[in-house]
Amino acid sequence: MILAYLGPEGTFSHQAAHYWTRQQDCELVSYPTVMATLLAVSRGDVHLAAVPVENSIEGSVNLTMDFLAKEQLRTDMRKTDISIQGELVLDIVHCLAAVDKSSPLETILSHPQALAQCRGYLENHFPQVRLEQTESTAHAAAIAAARGAGWGAISSAYAADTYNLAVRQKNIADITPNQTRFLLLGDSEPESTGNDKTSLMLALPQDKPGGLYSILQEFAAAGINLTRIESRPSKKELGDYIFFIDCEGHRRTQPLQRVLSLLNTKTALLSVLGSYPVFVQGSDAHD
Amino acid sequence: MILAYLGPEGTFSHQAAHYWTRQQDCELVSYPTVMATLLAVSRGDVHLAAVPVENSIEGSVNLTMDFLAKEQLRTDMRKTDISIQGELVLDIVHCLAAVDKSSPLETILSHPQALAQCRGYLENHFPQVRLEQTESTAHAAAIAAARGAGWGAISSAYAADTYNLAVRQKNIADITPNQTRFLLLGDSEPESTGNDKTSLMLALPQDKPGGLYSILQEFAAAGINLTRIESRPSKKELGDYIFFIDCEGHRRTQPLQRVLSLLNTKTALLSVLGSYPVFVQGSDAHD
Repeated sequence: MILAYLGPEGTFSHQAAHYWTRQQDCELVSYPTVMATLLAVSRGDVHLAAVPVENSIEGSVNLTMDFLAKEQLRTDMRKTDISIQGELVLDIVHCLAAVDKSSPLETILSHPQALAQCRGYLENHFPQVRLEQTESTAHAAAIAAARGAGWGAISSAYAADTYNLAVRQKNIADITPNQTRFLLLGDSEPESTGNDKTSLMLALPQDKPGGLYSILQEFAAAGINLTRIESRPSKKELGDYIFFIDCEGHRRTQPLQRVLSLLNTKTALLSVLGSYPVFVQGSDAHD
Repeated sequence: MILAYLGPEGTFSHQAAHYWTRQQDCELVSYPTVMATLLAVSRGDVHLAAVPVENSIEGSVNLTMDFLAKEQLRTDMRKTDISIQGELVLDIVHCLAAVDKSSPLETILSHPQALAQCRGYLENHFPQVRLEQTESTAHAAAIAAARGAGWGAISSAYAADTYNLAVRQKNIADITPNQTRFLLLGDSEPESTGNDKTSLMLALPQDKPGGLYSILQEFAAAGINLTRIESRPSKKELGDYIFFIDCEGHRRTQPLQRVLSLLNTKTALLSVLGSYPVFVQGSDAHD
């Protein structure tokens, strides 16, 4: 099995991919962009892909969901049925890393967003240091490692470890850092584990008040909790909006299976993007 | 009136701020991060702030909504009642810009995400050119302008114009570029125009199936369309989730006023983030 991720080594996507290799034996292959990673799995060049889906500093946040939406609308023969096979939530913790613990730093490298998130720390502790932008926090760690003493990187501890850097200070962001959610995409479907989640995409027959309400009515009547709901403009292919809904349960087990068949008659489009095990916080994703 | 925006000049935030100066006379002041811009209006240092709210390459996408949510939960005396006073949707169109139309380019500058979005174009047309990361597409235009011939920038036409660069090629992104939505924040409340939108934040009394459903029931019964719905993890301050809902209508006019009072009894928290005129696509925001 080959698992694609947004490279280089040390990205948050790589960390997510690494987590999944402990669940099934895979060879990891890096791609230069999130879109290239998505296309690789969609074309069947690779079996699996690890991609960010919410609130990431590695690529556009909505790209993955929009891509999955478009895949659902494709009807050509080359279509691969990729679906969501797993999820993972990573804490984004910025660290200052360098080749050693003590050499004075002349330049600190990182992704613009990470530099912005650590601005207060940098102004307090390194007011004279030159800041340089990189494509990702992993690139920053790789460059600092290659250039040696005097070069620092703001990156995850995982990236520092990947490039043999020493972590000088952990948790340097001015505000509590966010989490990023990752999805594992592939062409098989995990069986029900008893603690599963299902991701749906749906569009309503027409843009009328109460359309979404009548959808949620079915979930409420069946006692199914929603864990996420989001509307996205559909670019008019399918009325005004499409909805992404995550709910408890597996598509092949009750009561969700029954609800899905009821929803078929109430929606202009209903696609199951995948049924997969719920990620349990405190798993060993940060090892 | 002073209006804060994420600088430098030429950012998409600056373009949004510039649009609003044509509706009310304001002096524009730039801030270095989205968070600094939000804090400036929250502390009362400025009267208004223009901030991105969805799908931006300038700062974290969820930052603005999370900030507004936290503001609603503050109860200290220094609290300023900021609310949403307007919205604006900008097309993100990447251009290749330089000081002149024809000098060969040795380096092309841009924000990592813009470089990634234009990778195919760059590989086809500039395979030998060195790529350099910048903090924003506006910074790229500013640096290209300062360094002169041989330096290109991927930026908006607005940024190119701001720094007197020539646009060599428009629309160079490999995939259809996205739109970014901006909000105008301030401490007054626009009166009803007859074509308004209201943004709400709400939390349910407990995480039970059907909670959201019973909320949407009120909107459906009153014939009020929702234009956006999104759940966000609440970090456990208020149960598991908070919901951001945009709906048609103004808080001070019927039927929305009546629905809001009905919702008060069904929610653990209900905050009106603002009532403001709907942005009409095709307005002169790109001039």
